[in-house]
Order: sequence, then C-alpha cells, then structure tokens
Amino acid sequence: MNEQKFFNFSNINIPPICNKILEDLKHEVDSKTKPPGSLGDLESLAIKIGKIQQTLNPQLRNPHILIFAGDHGIAKNSPISPYPQEVTFQMVLNFLSEGAAINVFAKQNNISLKVVDAGVNFDFNNTPLIQKKLPSSIEFLDRKIRMGTRDYSKESAMTLEEMNKALSEAASIVDEIHAENNKTNGSTNGSDHGSNVIGFGEMGIGNTSSASIFLSLLANLPLESCVGAGTGHSSEGIKTKISILENAIKTHAHALSSSTSSATEFATTVMTTFGGYELCMMAGAMLRAAELQMLILVDGFISSSAMLWCSHFAPNILDYTVFSHLSEERAHRLMLEQMDAHPIVNLKMRLGEGTGVAVTYPIIQSAVNFLNQMATFSSAGVANK
Amino acid sequence: MNEQKFFNFSNINIPPICNKILEDLKHEVDSKTKPPGSLGDLESLAIKIGKIQQTLNPQLRNPHILIFAGDHGIAKNSPISPYPQEVTFQMVLNFLSEGAAINVFAKQNNISLKVVDAGVNFDFNNTPLIQKKLPSSIEFLDRKIRMGTRDYSKESAMTLEEMNKALSEAASIVDEIHAENNKTNGSTNGSDHGSNVIGFGEMGIGNTSSASIFLSLLANLPLESCVGAGTGHSSEGIKTKISILENAIKTHAHALSSSTSSATEFATTVMTTFGGYELCMMAGAMLRAAELQMLILVDGFISSSAMLWCSHFAPNILDYTVFSHLSEERAHRLMLEQMDAHPIVNLKMRLGEGTGVAVTYPIIQSAVNFLNQMATFSSAGVANK
Repeated sequence: MNEQKFFNFSNINIPPICNKILEDLKHEVDSKTKPPGSLGDLESLAIKIGKIQQTLNPQLRNPHILIFAGDHGIAKNSPISPYPQEVTFQMVLNFLSEGAAINVFAKQNNISLKVVDAGVNFDFNNTPLIQKKLPSSIEFLDRKIRMGTRDYSKESAMTLEEMNKALSEAASIVDEIHAENNKTNGSTNGSDHGSNVIGFGEMGIGNTSSASIFLSLLANLPLESCVGAGTGHSSEGIKTKISILENAIKTHAHALSSSTSSATEFATTVMTTFGGYELCMMAGAMLRAAELQMLILVDGFISSSAMLWCSHFAPNILDYTVFSHLSEERAHRLMLEQMDAHPIVNLKMRLGEGTGVAVTYPIIQSAVNFLNQMATFSSAGVANK
Repeated sequence: MNEQKFFNFSNINIPPICNKILEDLKHEVDSKTKPPGSLGDLESLAIKIGKIQQTLNPQLRNPHILIFAGDHGIAKNSPISPYPQEVTFQMVLNFLSEGAAINVFAKQNNISLKVVDAGVNFDFNNTPLIQKKLPSSIEFLDRKIRMGTRDYSKESAMTLEEMNKALSEAASIVDEIHAENNKTNGSTNGSDHGSNVIGFGEMGIGNTSSASIFLSLLANLPLESCVGAGTGHSSEGIKTKISILENAIKTHAHALSSSTSSATEFATTVMTTFGGYELCMMAGAMLRAAELQMLILVDGFISSSAMLWCSHFAPNILDYTVFSHLSEERAHRLMLEQMDAHPIVNLKMRLGEGTGVAVTYPIIQSAVNFLNQMATFSSAGVANK
C-alpha cells in the first residue's frame, strides 16, 4: 500500500475567493446594452465565474465531465433499488459504446467525458470493448478500489484505507485534467493550457440510498424526509427502502455517536460506513478541483450529496460550485437548501450520469459569453436609463 | 395598396396534429437506456416535437430567430417606459453591429438571426451600417409599416389596413425562411431543405404596455395584475404606467364593447387599438409558422402576448409552440397560465430580443438528440426494471 497516496484532511487547502473584483464585475455587467439585471441568473453566474477566475473576462477551457461508477454491497442483498446490480456495469459499457444519455449531451456540447471505474462489481479488463480502442469521445480510467462496497446493513461499506485511497486517486485524476492541453486546438499558449471547468456524474445501482443517508446524518434530518424513489420505486418500494436504511443506521449507531469530535471525523465515519467508492472518489475530485480553483459543476441528488459531504468540513468549496439542476428525486430540494444552493434549471430530470451538467452547460457558456462579447452602452451608442 | 396581400382570418389553416404516433413515440422514449421518465421535460419536449413532425426521428433544421422591432406612439408622449423611444432604433443598430445579448447567444448556438423593421421611428436607409455590408450573422429586413404606431391614449394605434399588411408581410417572411436552404451545408437533399424551427423576439420601447393590455383584455383580467416593471420601472413608475394604461383603455371602451361578436373581431380591435407593428408582425409570423407545421419557440412576456392573441382565435397554434422561459416580468406567469403553457426554464431573465429562446435552444436540441441517438435497452444489453 502506498502511504504517500493517502489523503490528509488537514492538507486540504481551498483558497478563499478575493471579493475585491466584485464591484468591477458588477459594473462590467451593468455597462452592457441591456436593462440592469435583465439577464437574471446569467448575470449572477457570470459574476460568480469572474470571481473564481479573478477576471472581467472569464473563459471556460476544455470542459470535462467525470463519471464515477461503483457498486454497493447492500444493493446485491436488499431491495433498495428496482434495478439489479448488474445495471451498473452494463451502463458503464453503454457509456463506453456512446449509447447513454450523457454521451449524447456531452457530444452535443463539446464536453470531454471520462468514465472512472471506482469500484464496479465487474471485471472490465476482459471485455472486448476495453481491449479494443474506445471511441475518441470517451476515456475509461481503471481506478477500481474493490468489486463493490461491503453491505452496510451488516458492516462498514469501506475501510479507512480504501476511503483515503479513493479520495487521493480521484485528486490525481483532477490534477491530470487540470494540466491537460486542449486537444482541439493543441495550443501551448499559457492561457489556453489545461481545463478550468469540471462536472461530476455517477453510475451506481443503490447510490441514492447512500446519498439519502448522507443527507440525513450530515444535516441531522429525519431519514424519511431524505429518501425518494431513486430510479423509480413505487411508494411501497420507498417505504421498504426507508425501513432497510433505518435499520442500517441503527446498526452503526455507536460508531456514529462516537465520531463527533470534529467535522472531519464525523464525515469520515459517514463515508466509510455508508459511502460508495464512486461517491468517495467524486468527493475527492471535487475537493481537488476547488484547490485548483476550477469551476465545479454539480449534477443531481447524488453528486450533490458528495458536495454536501465536502462542504461539511470545507464549506468554502461552495464558492467554486455551480449546481446545474434541481433533480426530481424528492429530497434534492432539501439537500440543496443545506448548501444555500440555487440550481440553474428544473427540468424534472433524475437520471444522474452528469446529464444535468451536460444539458445545462450551454447556459453557463452563455453567461460567460455575454460578459465577454456584448457591447456596452457607450461603445454601442445606446441611451442608458 | 396591394389588396391581395391583405390578411384574411378565415383563411387561417393550422393543421390539427394527428395523435396516432403518440404511443409509438412514448414507446421509443421508454426503450432508451434510462429509467422511464428520468429525462423529465426533455421527454415531453421530444414527444411534442415528434408529434409536430410526425416522426420518431425529429430533426431541428436551420433554426431562425426573427426579431421584430417597432415603436409605440404612446411611448413618445407618456412615461410608460424608463427608457426614451430612441433606444428602439439604437438597439436595432446594436443588433446589426452584433453587440446585443441576442447576437451573442444566437451565434453561440448557431441560430440564424433576422431583424425586421416593422415600424421603428427612425430612417435606417441613411445609416452607414445599412449601406455597407452587414456581418454574415445577421440580416436586416425593411418591412416598415409606419414610423411608429399612433398614440393609443388618444386614437387607435394602427388602421385595419396596417394590421392586415403587417400580418401578411410577416407571413411572407416566414414562407421564405421555411423554404430557405440550409446555408451551412448547402445540401439540396429534400430532408435537409428549409427551416422547421423558428423563434420570436422583439424590440420596442413601450411594448410591455401593449402586452399587458392584451393580457387584460383577452383574458379578462384586471389591468393592475397584468402590468409589471418592464425594462425597470420603480413601484411608483409601475403605478403611473397602470394609471396611463387604464385611462387609455377607458378612451376606447366603446370600440371594445362593440367588437364582441366573434373572437377574431375582438382580437382585431385589441390589435388595431393597442398593438404595435412588431407585435402584429410577430403574430402574423407565428400563425404562418403553425400553418407550415414548424416548431414555434416563444420568448418572454411580449412574444407570449402575441401568442396569446393568436391563440384567442386559433387555439391549436399552441400544439406547435414551445415556451422557452418564464420571464421576470411579473405578469408572465399569469399570461402563461391562460395558455396552459409550461416554459422550459426560469432564469429570471426579462430582456426580450429572443434571448430566452436562444439561451434555451440547446435544451430543445438535447431533447431531439436523445431521442435520435441514445441506445435502447435491448441494443445496449442493459437489464430493464
């Protein structure tokens, strides 16, 4: 085991955002040929991105979506999802064949896609798809921690070592993306170098259950208000899901109540006990993206739960974060409230994979574009109010 | 005056949409590798567009946005807007210089832009911008009916002849767009021929006032619930606006109460009395687009008022219509309710120009793309529920 690769919470260093540029950004936005405020959320998005990049001319460079895939031991043994566990690996193969929704939307909006095997209960090495050359639109990263987590109705989902490894591995993936040259123009110009915007998606049968438990424990909310239909439970199915998860939480009550000395200690217990490898890697990737001052795009309920986990001990990560959409998963609203988050759209989607990020991405691009490209009242000779 | 060009309400012929394909479309959507319903509004959009085009593989060809610009006599004499009337022509020049928000968003999303002078109180022919070659991203169409409408606080805004001419001229513009070859690929292939999706924007200082009056009269709602801040009135400014418009309506009370024999008669009186040339042309363009079975994209409060006017006597136009966004103009919600319309996004925008259409367009494209490009459960070998 490589000790250096282990994650150290005390080393997390997310730079605070300097507010000095705010007035200049507001002035720039108001100088454009439109009534003040009339571009609504596009204006606040432009200001947020300008603040992150500390410039009046922000740019979105080489956008990526990372899809983390992982299996959950509990999904094999308990009816927490209407779909069998096999769907996780089948959908990963579907991503690699460009057949999933995220493939369609990422391609449409020129977003690079990487699928990370964080811990899928399937051996991809022997599949013909991995052995042959993948389509250029997609990359597969084998970072498998284990063939799925342990069943948390009986034992902790992962070990501390596994959690540390997942967090660190994910950080290194983000390091690479951040440094990656823009493939489309091959420029070596400093300002075109690398990526500065990254979105997060996931695939993992059973992971709405982990996300619901995260919300309940991290925000101290009754579990029943945190659980929804997932991929499509009936109301009867939701009741069963709640009962299974309530029992699982009771099983680990002692570990939880004895981990309250610090926010990181509690977060660690929540992740190791109920997490998924895909959730853990996503959180590690989010933390690293914020350290690198990248714009972070959050998808739906599950990626929001990874962000909730991060913000529990590193709240200023939210300064780098844009929430793309309100999911139809019913507890998403509650989860977003915990982070005072206002998602860009509500399209009643609940698919995951990063689809909310990909579909919403052109709106974020529009926010950046109006700031860079619109004429000002004085340059256009338009009378102001 | 060219009598043949006059508009004849009884000739309006919007084909009813055949529902036979609905079950096949639903089945196609549900066969895709995603939980049923999980793409939310994208699914209903895909089904709507599939129904309009009567195909399981709809295509969006050569999208256009038409911006109709016109001035309102009342805006010259009464403080119904915080901006002077000159801003209308100044913004048209800004469109032609590619400096406005709509230029930025249309360019980003590959939407062709045409600006129609329906009745701006300015002579564009002598401006250097019109005399020299315009940028390729924009086209200017001189269809000026008059140098602005008459002041409806004193007399009717337009004559019946002007209304008819505006409706007919606009229809002919849409005929041309519908037949226009796709410039980007120059294909003469039948299926690539012409445009089948058209969005509508506007520019006209004072036109939220006409839109508010349309809503109040066509939906029989109290005027004060139909009036908002427009380009940015204070609450005091809104009160003044309401009082000016109430008096204007009183002035024409007799004409209104004696025009109730049919929906078209009442609509005609509403348009000639309080309309704008840009609103009237927009309505004519919308009616023709529906006759041609094109997908119609509505922007905010003002384009919705043109659609409300059309749907007053031709309700099945709504089968061809997608509302892009909920405007921040406070009565837009009420206006949409009249048409049972559910806009795609709420970005708190209130700019007009077609910006809501342009910013939302990629989402509509995503709806069409998933239907055409996603794998099915059986083709991808993914287990269904």
